[in-house]
Amino acid sequence: MDALEAIHTRRSIREFEPGREVSDEQLQTVLAAAMAAPSAGNSQPWHFVVVRNATIRERLSTVHPYVPMAATAPVVIVVCAEPALEVYPGFWPQDCSAAIQNLLLAARSLGLGTVWTGLYPNQQHCDTVAAILNLPPGVIPMAIVPMGYPAQEFRRQERYKPERVHLESW
Amino acid sequence: MDALEAIHTRRSIREFEPGREVSDEQLQTVLAAAMAAPSAGNSQPWHFVVVRNATIRERLSTVHPYVPMAATAPVVIVVCAEPALEVYPGFWPQDCSAAIQNLLLAARSLGLGTVWTGLYPNQQHCDTVAAILNLPPGVIPMAIVPMGYPAQEFRRQERYKPERVHLESW
Repeated sequence: MDALEAIHTRRSIREFEPGREVSDEQLQTVLAAAMAAPSAGNSQPWHFVVVRNATIRERLSTVHPYVPMAATAPVVIVVCAEPALEVYPGFWPQDCSAAIQNLLLAARSLGLGTVWTGLYPNQQHCDTVAAILNLPPGVIPMAIVPMGYPAQEFRRQERYKPERVHLESW
Repeated sequence: MDALEAIHTRRSIREFEPGREVSDEQLQTVLAAAMAAPSAGNSQPWHFVVVRNATIRERLSTVHPYVPMAATAPVVIVVCAEPALEVYPGFWPQDCSAAIQNLLLAARSLGLGTVWTGLYPNQQHCDTVAAILNLPPGVIPMAIVPMGYPAQEFRRQERYKPERVHLESW
């Protein structure tokens, strides 16, 4: 799929085709895309916890009000940061966000739907997910990304706002 | 260009073809791609300052040691955040990073090179850029992104690390 089409037709998918699995090969493709993201000093300060287990997905689905679809998506990817891996401190939220965006776009290009549900910087949500996934100290869960075949249509999102572009200076 | 190819062959381009301009249409394409990014609550808390002026680019090129190519790139995009636009506070660095990644990928798909040079959370660098671009209070410069036709080759980056993938839990 064309890169610009993937960018413009990616949307948050919150309903998934029941019983239709995501293959290990598809998972590998989206994770490789995520890890191809740029990062400050090329530090790659990310980890990915891949959850297919229904019991764990159900626990994740109640972490906050915007992630119930973790229970019904065939697979959930929890994107985590390990700030100790940084070369230039302070940039890991940006690095991990670039990785997540790559992941969403790669999924879209495979016909898979995703929804980026944030955790960090909500400390309570981070702590809850860290406990569910047994994350070691120093690893921060950034976002829960349910993924599966969409039961909603992809469609072009119109978000361009000309007033957000400033020429030469503000 | 295929989305996965754009993702895997995007790299930081730090040298640009002298004298080869980026068209307004190309700029529009990459800015539209940036604004197609997801954001928490669809708040779209971003702004883009597009700088072609050589004097301003030269001033930007000395803000920190990693952005000298702002002086030689035909155009520089400074991605800014306006946190007051947020619906769910605290997510704007992630939102703006998703927009930047879309911008880099759209540029790659057009054959244009970019390099994401971070500003935030370095307060001194942010203040310097805010002064150069006359940013209003409450607008935070996130990153300086020089863009132009590359004088370096795009090539596939191999960054996949299997040990960063954890199955079911850590």
